[in-house]
Parts: sequence; structure tokens; C-alpha cells
Amino acid sequence: MTSELFGTLFARGAAAGAASDEAWLRAMLRAEAALAEAASEMGAVSEEAAANVAAAADPGRFDLAAVAASAARIGNPVAGIVDRLRELVPEAHRPVVHYGATSQDILDTAMMLVAKDTVAAIRRELRECAAAALDAAAGIDESPPMWGRTLLQRAEPITFSDLILTWDRTLTTAEQALGALRFPASLAGPVGVSWGKPGLRRQPDSETPIAEPGPEDLPADVGTAVEQRPERAMGLRERYAARLDLDIAPGSWHTNRSPVVRIGAAAAEAAGTCGKIAIDIILLSQNEIGEVSEARGGGSTSMPHKRNPVAATAARACAARTPGLVATLYAAMPQELQRSPGLWHSEWETLSDLLRLTGSAAAWLRESLEGLRVHPEAMRRNLEGAPE
Amino acid sequence: MTSELFGTLFARGAAAGAASDEAWLRAMLRAEAALAEAASEMGAVSEEAAANVAAAADPGRFDLAAVAASAARIGNPVAGIVDRLRELVPEAHRPVVHYGATSQDILDTAMMLVAKDTVAAIRRELRECAAAALDAAAGIDESPPMWGRTLLQRAEPITFSDLILTWDRTLTTAEQALGALRFPASLAGPVGVSWGKPGLRRQPDSETPIAEPGPEDLPADVGTAVEQRPERAMGLRERYAARLDLDIAPGSWHTNRSPVVRIGAAAAEAAGTCGKIAIDIILLSQNEIGEVSEARGGGSTSMPHKRNPVAATAARACAARTPGLVATLYAAMPQELQRSPGLWHSEWETLSDLLRLTGSAAAWLRESLEGLRVHPEAMRRNLEGAPE
Amino acid sequence: MTSELFGTLFARGAAAGAASDEAWLRAMLRAEAALAEAASEMGAVSEEAAANVAAAADPGRFDLAAVAASAARIGNPVAGIVDRLRELVPEAHRPVVHYGATSQDILDTAMMLVAKDTVAAIRRELRECAAAALDAAAGIDESPPMWGRTLLQRAEPITFSDLILTWDRTLTTAEQALGALRFPASLAGPVGVSWGKPGLRRQPDSETPIAEPGPEDLPADVGTAVEQRPERAMGLRERYAARLDLDIAPGSWHTNRSPVVRIGAAAAEAAGTCGKIAIDIILLSQNEIGEVSEARGGGSTSMPHKRNPVAATAARACAARTPGLVATLYAAMPQELQRSPGLWHSEWETLSDLLRLTGSAAAWLRESLEGLRVHPEAMRRNLEGAPE
Amino acid sequence: MTSELFGTLFARGAAAGAASDEAWLRAMLRAEAALAEAASEMGAVSEEAAANVAAAADPGRFDLAAVAASAARIGNPVAGIVDRLRELVPEAHRPVVHYGATSQDILDTAMMLVAKDTVAAIRRELRECAAAALDAAAGIDESPPMWGRTLLQRAEPITFSDLILTWDRTLTTAEQALGALRFPASLAGPVGVSWGKPGLRRQPDSETPIAEPGPEDLPADVGTAVEQRPERAMGLRERYAARLDLDIAPGSWHTNRSPVVRIGAAAAEAAGTCGKIAIDIILLSQNEIGEVSEARGGGSTSMPHKRNPVAATAARACAARTPGLVATLYAAMPQELQRSPGLWHSEWETLSDLLRLTGSAAAWLRESLEGLRVHPEAMRRNLEGAPE
Repeated sequence: MTSELFGTLFARGAAAGAASDEAWLRAMLRAEAALAEAASEMGAVSEEAAANVAAAADPGRFDLAAVAASAARIGNPVAGIVDRLRELVPEAHRPVVHYGATSQDILDTAMMLVAKDTVAAIRRELRECAAAALDAAAGIDESPPMWGRTLLQRAEPITFSDLILTWDRTLTTAEQALGALRFPASLAGPVGVSWGKPGLRRQPDSETPIAEPGPEDLPADVGTAVEQRPERAMGLRERYAARLDLDIAPGSWHTNRSPVVRIGAAAAEAAGTCGKIAIDIILLSQNEIGEVSEARGGGSTSMPHKRNPVAATAARACAARTPGLVATLYAAMPQELQRSPGLWHSEWETLSDLLRLTGSAAAWLRESLEGLRVHPEAMRRNLEGAPE
Repeated sequence: MTSELFGTLFARGAAAGAASDEAWLRAMLRAEAALAEAASEMGAVSEEAAANVAAAADPGRFDLAAVAASAARIGNPVAGIVDRLRELVPEAHRPVVHYGATSQDILDTAMMLVAKDTVAAIRRELRECAAAALDAAAGIDESPPMWGRTLLQRAEPITFSDLILTWDRTLTTAEQALGALRFPASLAGPVGVSWGKPGLRRQPDSETPIAEPGPEDLPADVGTAVEQRPERAMGLRERYAARLDLDIAPGSWHTNRSPVVRIGAAAAEAAGTCGKIAIDIILLSQNEIGEVSEARGGGSTSMPHKRNPVAATAARACAARTPGLVATLYAAMPQELQRSPGLWHSEWETLSDLLRLTGSAAAWLRESLEGLRVHPEAMRRNLEGAPE
Repeated sequence: MTSELFGTLFARGAAAGAASDEAWLRAMLRAEAALAEAASEMGAVSEEAAANVAAAADPGRFDLAAVAASAARIGNPVAGIVDRLRELVPEAHRPVVHYGATSQDILDTAMMLVAKDTVAAIRRELRECAAAALDAAAGIDESPPMWGRTLLQRAEPITFSDLILTWDRTLTTAEQALGALRFPASLAGPVGVSWGKPGLRRQPDSETPIAEPGPEDLPADVGTAVEQRPERAMGLRERYAARLDLDIAPGSWHTNRSPVVRIGAAAAEAAGTCGKIAIDIILLSQNEIGEVSEARGGGSTSMPHKRNPVAATAARACAARTPGLVATLYAAMPQELQRSPGLWHSEWETLSDLLRLTGSAAAWLRESLEGLRVHPEAMRRNLEGAPE
Repeated sequence: MTSELFGTLFARGAAAGAASDEAWLRAMLRAEAALAEAASEMGAVSEEAAANVAAAADPGRFDLAAVAASAARIGNPVAGIVDRLRELVPEAHRPVVHYGATSQDILDTAMMLVAKDTVAAIRRELRECAAAALDAAAGIDESPPMWGRTLLQRAEPITFSDLILTWDRTLTTAEQALGALRFPASLAGPVGVSWGKPGLRRQPDSETPIAEPGPEDLPADVGTAVEQRPERAMGLRERYAARLDLDIAPGSWHTNRSPVVRIGAAAAEAAGTCGKIAIDIILLSQNEIGEVSEARGGGSTSMPHKRNPVAATAARACAARTPGLVATLYAAMPQELQRSPGLWHSEWETLSDLLRLTGSAAAWLRESLEGLRVHPEAMRRNLEGAPE
């Protein structure tokens, strides 16, 4: 969700597309379709109704502006999704649309779908960064010695390999944190307790679901991980999550925002990692040090002779914007009672922006590292200088 | 710079337009035009050249995507502006384009033009909020007594007027802080010292400016406010700022970011103020208190009977996103030497987002306050309950 | 409020003392004494009672631990102050203690007294920083040329004076922002409206104040600055503020936190300014550049030969901790109704820490700048190198 | 590291002690002792020397003020530790003190020791919070129905058990995140590469260690987890970590700050969780709702009749201070080259404060939940009201 003007800097790489408006719309529709299909599997709605909802949930049939307009009416864009879906399905199937869900279920599920794809894109960039860093070292016959610098003062010698391996390890650490994330689906109903309520069932000759206890959707033991109860048949929530390839939360997370802040934290860690390597490149590229340089140094509108480390600069800029965003996510944790008036809403664009900026930082860092020019002779010349 | 999908919530009101991509493009072009015209006034370039540059600086002749693409080359979008301007003017006038400026001059000046317009829009919203609050009180015959609540516990009675006057004073305080802001133009050249260097003059038969001392552009005494030297004829910087209706900084602010953080701070204060009134409305709208309600309560996708205070909720959400952004601006202050590799770049969208969200918070609060329904009978009924 | 262990780094200079526990205790007692004396001037309590309260308000008679213990009972330490004062005055004068005030009045007033003194200490440090910077330039016969560096790449020459004047202007700008701050007293009573209520008067033969309209304490016109009504005799609030040498707020600021965030913002701006100059010194001190060095370079536990720029490093560290704290203050702005359950409380140590760290940043920067060694020959040598 | 005055609010519970100055001093000494003992195990120094260092590393023989004073000389307090240890051991054993380490190794190791103990204390509080919440539900015969409230509006009924189980699950989730943390020792030497260098060995008749390859301390394969190389004998780093019961990092983390931000993130998640439950208690305690109340309601200096939810208020205040601190940790990630001039230093008190505040939030929440009074009749009365 960046501007077009600044998007070449701050919405770079695959992560930006994965967190776009279109991705959000698609994700909300996937959630609604999966819900109808899971309900059909449970026998709560007819297969035909579910098929109709799934067919209607086609992004091409939705107008982003109309969906957005609905957000101003109820506070989130799911109303526009539901209204339009009901228009698109035969009247008899309308009760099936948004089956038992509340708008937070759809929006939170969509947020996880978007986050999962974006995180996958960021991980790919980080792995490519690591590969590019190792390539930079591999391109040199033997690892040249260079100054280790502490507090930006010459300290003791290290080798260029030492530096590269530090970068590699840092990138790998951050990538693993992203890989350990969980992305739970949300399906808890209006006040977050439907998941543990008796199952809704379809009235025999109608699409209007009715409340009737169903043994396959027994109340979950709270705090008990689902995988510990293998004997239990899958309920609605499990089928819904499975269809979306998302994790199953042990209960409602409407006002338990751990899943959100953990994604934010892992992203900010990755961004900080990119920022660390970027500033190293910038410092080692100083004319007076000159131990590395970017293959494609950027110019200047007033000084054509300059070769600025533009990619590392952009990576650092993206990274510098993430700590404030992660603070916003943590500040939004104390969400009141069964749904927060405002703190929940403050997460959506914040998480999107944070993921997009992290992805952009990684994409820029990759560009900086790919073909990074290493200057062993400068390392040697600098080493010959006394530590002063 | 928000998404379209969430833009009805987070890019609401006139401030959003004032901080749009189009506004930024227009502002960069206004800066380039004013620079050429000021240089012409100084006799450094011909009137014809200046007129050509000014005519070329027409947003309709610029492609946002092409401008954006240039940002990926040199790290900011001014390169695309300058390149296109040079295409649009006759070859002889090309040296006049971007006369003596560096890209940071144009971008920082544009940032101030954008901020100034956005702040004006926010101020209008805040004044309308205050007017709407006073109207809400005026609509009631006599000011009803109600509970003053501290730590959300009944404390001692106040009147509804007391509450409204507190809101009014808070809004006025925040509006005045925005009104006291200064928006300096930037014109300091590649390394921030050109402003105090001898004036550049046009070679008699050429548009190539040459360095030659000019008495009207004597070095400014650093730290001396310009208004203390009334006898001095206006130099290039003063004429440039005057044409843009911006303030004159006492020197280069390339790496002195006080102007930026001050705008950010005043915006965040205004947003916090909107957040305070929004949470008051949300709390007083609780069913159990019921002392006020929004005229247009928002519904729910799962609970049609609900009347949610949607406008106050959205105002609170916008406000909740501002503290993290203002932290990013302060964290960007330690900009290295003559131009920072990355911290400068981290400000652009951050300030835009902060201003847009503040404007959106104010716009939503205005909607909440306009026609706020006051329920004196609920105030009276609550008062009759013992403090318990 | 720092640890002793890290206090030599993060509680340095006069600001740390001005924001200490002892300073807070003293300030709360000054507020209680001024309140009694102002009430006596108004004729609401006897001179003898006021004198007794003022005499009792002696920090030496208060046990910090006991005062602190009271905070756990009611949520703030004023209860312990009031209880102990009541023990210390004759029984007949007990009703006079804490006359018409609520604990927030005393605490907020104390916060302003503490802030005012701390800000004064910070301003002195900043002025000394500027003087030291100018001295560094004055110690050199003629201002040597040096590289201006943008994005940490050599750009165009500047002079050392250019650099120093930039630092001086930046410091002066930040110092002026601190100088423009207002520090309002708080006296608004339990629910923030007593200031505009009829004056309390002493019953003829008792120290129990009674409510009776008093023409000299007419309700203030909300939103009208006090100085616009010169004909009005001073009321209780004005006398209280005058005795404490604090400003008069136009009304209650119990839940209008503009005064708090403005102090925080000006402090963070000053800290960011110190951080900017500190990183410049660190960068120019790199062995490969060597254009400046700290007079007293710090060593290392493992590398005795090193001369680290310790003072600049410490200044940067202090500054780096301020953006997060200022975000906490802005996040605390939406204080609910007549007193916030928790957001108010979150300000106290946060503001103290922010002011202390800003003062420490300035103190360390002063140490770095005082006697900064300038190396013109290195500047010249670097300039002779091509920009590469 | 809080003030005494505000310490009853913001340094509450066992976590505060675990993050105290004394704890830090003890931890630095434990690190030095373990280092000498591990070196002795390796045969690099004599057993006698190691025993002497370990005996000298007794907090009772160290003056906190003197240690603190050394921090102002070199930028961290380890110099004072090393100097004093060398005074305390026989002259012949002095070279053994601080064997092969740099001050960052000792300080970072101490930070992990402090964090590990503090996190353990926080986890105990969170488990007790969960137990107290379940007790509150268990104390009622059958779970009463109550309003589920979304956007603070009555939505649909839930039961009190639903609410309590949500709190329990949230607390458990946060506790588990803290339980999954790793606390690596640091031992990497001056420029972060000693861990992969040939082992240092003692000269036969001297305590001066000499560099000589040692097969038991072969260079670790970077990026390869230690546990994947079981055949390898333990080297110095492994023995050092084992003695301190800390984890073994795959390499130097001098400028890879993932371990630090992860602790910060898990703490902030726990604090946010406490904040969420605290605001729920505050909201449900409102006089107009009255569904729960704290056993020990706090009073007021001006309104003795009030029963404020002081413990929940204090918990919320502690929690509100954490997002800004976690942002500071993330902003400190881009640490330059082999040791950062300032960003590293900015972490120490920030992490301590964050852990202490998290522990205080949990301690206050436990006090609020222990003996929380539940009012089923109010829940019923409220439910009978129409949703309006």
C-alpha cells in the first residue's frame, strides 16, 4: 500500500505484490469460498449452494471501489464482499454466504493469507541475499584479510570471509524466524465463541442453517492443541483452515493478537538484518575505505561523477521505517473485550506496510549484493596503515 | 499513500488528497519552476529560459511511472523530473533546468509544499470538529449534569458543557500548534553550502550559469535570522521561497531535520487529540451508559441490530497509527554529514502517511461529532444511581 | 530514573539530577505548599494554616519509601504526600492540606516543575555544545577545506567552518524549541472542572473550606487566554501558578496532554540533534578519514591501542533511546473521559527518562566537542584524493 | 532500573529484582568466572589461576560506583570489572582475567543471564495470572451468561467461562513464547571471529596464553548448528556456555542482534496480553456495568468513596510503556561492522526496562485477578436490558 511515486523504492520485489489491494481482495474471497465449501462438507449447507458461493467469489466480479466504500459504513470492507456475493448467488443460497462468520473472521483470515504469501516472498529474497553474499566471497581466489572495525575504529584483522559468513548467518537466522511463523485461520463468529458452540446444521429443505448439536463439532477443550485430539472428526473450523492451507488456532484470536505481533516481529527482525548489512556496505564503500562497491553506483542530479551505493541506501531506508510500525502492532494488543473499537482496525495497513517494506529492504539488499564488487587491494592497503 | 481498499477509512477527507502522489508531483514541479523564475529575477538566467522551464513544469506532461522509475536509479524521483524537464525545454535552455539545486532541495521543498497544504486541510477539519462539538451542546436547552468519570469510575458530577468545552479547548490547542508551524523552502546545493556562496551568474551569451560574486547574494550570516537584515536585497533563496509562499530557513536544513519532526509532532498531537475525543464518544455510547450516540450507527455483517460508533472507531484507528510514525521521523534525525544514506529517504512516505492519517482522524471525528445525539435523560438516570 | 550501574552513561550531566526522585519529591511538596499559600491569599484558609502546611512540606521530613508505598495503594504517590502532611500539621489545619486539589493536580504540577528545571539544564548543555563547536573552529587559523560527503561519498568541497556552522545552527534551533516551551500548573480538582466553579471559602471559625461564590474566582471563559482578561483579579489557580513560576493553562489539562507531548517532542528534537553531530564526529574520526578526533579517546578491554570516540558514542546511544519514548507519550494522549486508567500513569517515568537521556546526550556531546581535535592536514590529504 | 519513588508501580514483582543493578553485576562476574574455568578445563590456563579468578568474582568485593565509573571511560562497565578482578588475583594470574574475551562478550553474556532469570520470573507471574483467572471462574457455581461486547456495544451473549478461557488461552500463548526463547552466551573476542580461530594455549611456565592450534577448538562451520557435530569435543565457547547454563550461538552475535529483539518481542507480547486483560477488567468494573470488581479497590486523595481498579490500572500503565521500548531494540539492529558505536549501548537499559515493566504488568495483573469479585447478578441484569 504505497504510492506509485515512491513505489519503486518502497514497494519493491515480490512482497509488494503479495500485499497489494488485489491480494487482499482475493484473500477475502478465498476465505468466503472456503467457508461455504467447509460448511457443505459438514452437511450444513448444500453442495450446490457452496458451489455457487465459490463461483461468485471471483475477484473479477468485484469492484474494489465499491468494496472500499462499504468499509466506511461498517468499519471494514467485508460488508461490501458479503453484499456483492449475495447479489451474485441465487436468492435461495443467500443465507449461505458468510455462513456463521463475522467480518473479523474473514478479514483476519485474509490478513493471514496475505501475510503468508508475503512472508514466503520475503524468505525467497533473504535466501537470495545469502546466496549473493556467498557468491561475492566465492568470486575471490583466497579470502583477503581486512580490518575488523569496532566503534568504526580499526581493531584487529578479520578476513573478508569472516564478514560474509557473518552476513550469511544473520540472514539465515532472520529467514528461519520467518519460516517458524504460524498463520491461523479465524472462524469464531460474532463474539468469538461460535467455534465451541454446537454445530449449525441446514434445515432439510432450506438453506437457512439451524442450530443443532453436531458431534463432529464438539466444543474444543480450550488450551488443548487440536493435534492432541486425533480421534475427533474435523469440524467446520478445521475444514475451513485446511482448505486455505492455514493453521488452526486453539480458539478465537479476535482479541488475542499474538499471531499478528509475531509476524510483525519476525518481519522487523528481517528488516533490521537487511539494514545491518546495508550500512556495512555503505561504510565499506566510502571513498576513503573503498573495500567494496555496488556494481551499479547511482548518480546524482547535481554531481554526475558520483557513484552512490543506491541499493544499499534504499535497503537502509526501507528498514528504518519498520521499528515504528512494529511498535504500532504491539500498541494495538490490548484489544477490548470481544472486539476492539479501533485497535483492531489499526493493524491492517500497518502489517501490510511492514511486510512490504521488509520485502523491499530484502529486494534492495539482494540488488546490492548481487555483483557486489570486492576490492582486496584496498583491504590490503588499508591494513598496511597503522591502526593509528 | 494508502491503498484504495482501505482508503475510505485511512485516506479520508481533504488531507488525503493534499498528500497524494499527484500533489507531490505538482509540488516538485512548482519548486523547479520557482527556481528558474527566481534565477531569472536575479539576472542569472534569461526570462525566456525561465518562462520555458515554468511552462514545461506542467504535471500533465509528466508520467508518474517514469518519474517513479528514476527514483530506483538515483534514490529519489527528482532525476525523472529533471530529465523530463530538459526534454521539454529548447536545448539552449537545458542548463537552466534545476539551476544550482540538488535533488534534495527540490524534494524537501516539495515535502514542505505538500505538508503546508495538508496541514491547512487538517486545521480546517479540526475547526469544524470544534464547531460541531459546540453545536452538540447548543442543541440542548440547558446543560445537563452528568457523571465525571475518573479511571472509568463515577467520581463527581460535571455538566455536558464541561465535557464539550474540554473537547473544544483540546481541539483548539492542537489546531494552534499546527498553525504555528513553519514550512521552509530548501535551496542549498549539492553539499548544503551553496546558499552562502557567491551568486551564480549567466554568461552574457549563454544560458550556462557561471560563478561570479553578486552583491545581492552575499553570504548570509549563519544563525542570523533573515528578517534581522532588512537592508539586504533578496537573494536567490529568498526569491525562490517567496514565489512558493514558503518560509526562509536561516541556512541549509539538508541534515538539520527540525522542520520535519516539528510538523510530525504537531500532526501527532492533533491525531492524539482526535483519539481522545473518539474514545470518549465510544465510552459514553456504551449501551450501559448511553449518554451519547452517533447519528449514523454502523451495522455489522453478523449482527444487523447493532449500532456501532463507526466514525469514532475509525478516528481512533487512524490516531492509533500515528505514534509509531512520529517515532520514525525522530529516529531519522541523526542524518550523516552532508546527506544521509537512507534516513532522509525514510521520511518521505512516513510524513505523508502521518499527515494523511491525522487528516483522516479529524475527518472521521468531524463526522462523529456532526449531529452527535445527546441523551440528557440517560445522564440524569445514571446520575441517580449511587456512585457504588 | 536510571540504574547506578549504567548511570555514568545514561544519567549524565545536570539534567539527571533535575529529574531525580528527590527532585520529584521536592516538586510535589512545593506544589502542596503553594496551594495552601495561594488559598490563604484568597482568604479561603488562614495564614497560620498555610504557614503550617508550607513548613511541613519539607523534603527532609518525608520518607521516599513510604511515599512510594502509597502509590501502590491508590495508583500514584500523592496519597503518601498528603497523608504525611496531615500528620505533620496541627489537627485543626488538616482540612487545609491538599486544598481542593486532586492527586493529578499535584502530580502534573510536579511533573512540570521537574520538566522545567530539566529543560533549563538541557538548554545550558546545548549552548555549551554550540560554544565548544565554535571554539573548535576558532582554534584553527583559517578554515580548512574538506570534502562534503553525501550518502557517505565524496561530493564537493566545503570548509570546516561550514560544518561547524551547520552544527551550531542545528544546536541553536533545538535549544530555541526548548526555550519556547510552556510549563502549566495544574489545579482543576477531582473531575477537572473546579477551576471554573465558584470559589471555595473558609467558614469563619473553621479551617473547613466551604463552597461560596467568590467574584475573584469567576468561571474562566474557556478558550480565552488569561492574559486577555487583565481586569480580572487573580484567582486561586493564577496565584498557585504564580507562586510556582509556572504558566497558567486556559483550563484543566487532566486529559488534554498537549503540554506533555510538546515537552517530549522538543526533548526528542534536541536528542536527535545531538545524535546527528555525534555520528558526524564518529564518521570523521574513522582511521581512514581522520579529520577530527576526541581529545580523550577511550580504550578497550581487549585492544589497548584503540582510541574510540567514546563521548560521541555515548551521546549517540542516549539519543537512540529517545524516539521510542516520545512515541509512548503520543500513544498516551487518548486519555479517557476525566482521568485515564493507566495512560496518564505511563507518562511519568517516560517523560523523566526522555529528559534525562536528552540531557545525557547533550552532556556527552559537550564532552566530545570540548577540545575536539581538528586535523586540517588530513582534510587536505583526503581532498587531494580524487572523488573516485 | 526504575526510580524508588515510582518503583512500587513500575518495578513490581520478582522480575524487577532479576533485572536490578545487583543482578547485572553478579551476571558479569559469573561470566568472567565461567570463562576462566572453561579455559582451565581446556588446559589453556592453570586450575589455580581459574580458581583465583572465580574466587575473586565475588559481588561483595566490587563497588558498583567504581564499576559504573569505568563505563564513562571506555563506554561500558566491563572495564571496571576487569580492572578490579586483576587487583584481586595474584599478579601471576592477571593475564588469565578476561581470557580472550572482549567487553562485549561479557556484557552480552550478562545481558542474557539477566534476561533468562527475568523471563523465568515473568513466566511464573503469567502462570499465576492464568491460575487466578481460572479460580475466579471456578468460584461460581455455574458459568453465568453475560453480554459479549464488540466495539464496546452489546453484541450477543457469551458466558463468563468463555471470557475466562479467552484470558487463560491468551496468557498461555504469551507464556509459551517466553518459554521458547534462547539465551546464547557470547564469546567471540575483539572483532567477533576468535570463536573460529585456533585455540589459545597457555605457555608451559607462564599464565600468558599463547596462540596455538588446538584440535578441540577447531573452527566451527558457520551456519552449522553445533548439535549437528556431536563427535566434536567441546571447545572453549561450549564449555563457557555450559557452565552458565546458556545456549550456544552458531557464531558471534556481536552485530547480529536477533537474540536481543526476540526477547524484547516476547516480553512485549506478554505485556500486551496483560494490557488486554487489564482493560477488560477496567471496562467490566465500570459502575454502569459492574460485572467484576477488584477485591481491593483503590481510593482517591479527593474522593474517598471511590473504588478504583488500581491493580488493573497499574498493569495497563506498565504495558503501555512497552511498545516504544521494543521499537528501540529493533531500531538498534543495524549495528555497524564489528561493533556499533552507540546502537549496541542503547540496548542495555532498554531491555532491562522492558523486562521489568513486563514483569510489573504481570505482577499487577495477578493482584487484580487474585480474588477478582465476579457479579453474576449484574451480568444477568445487563443481559435483560435490550441490546438497544
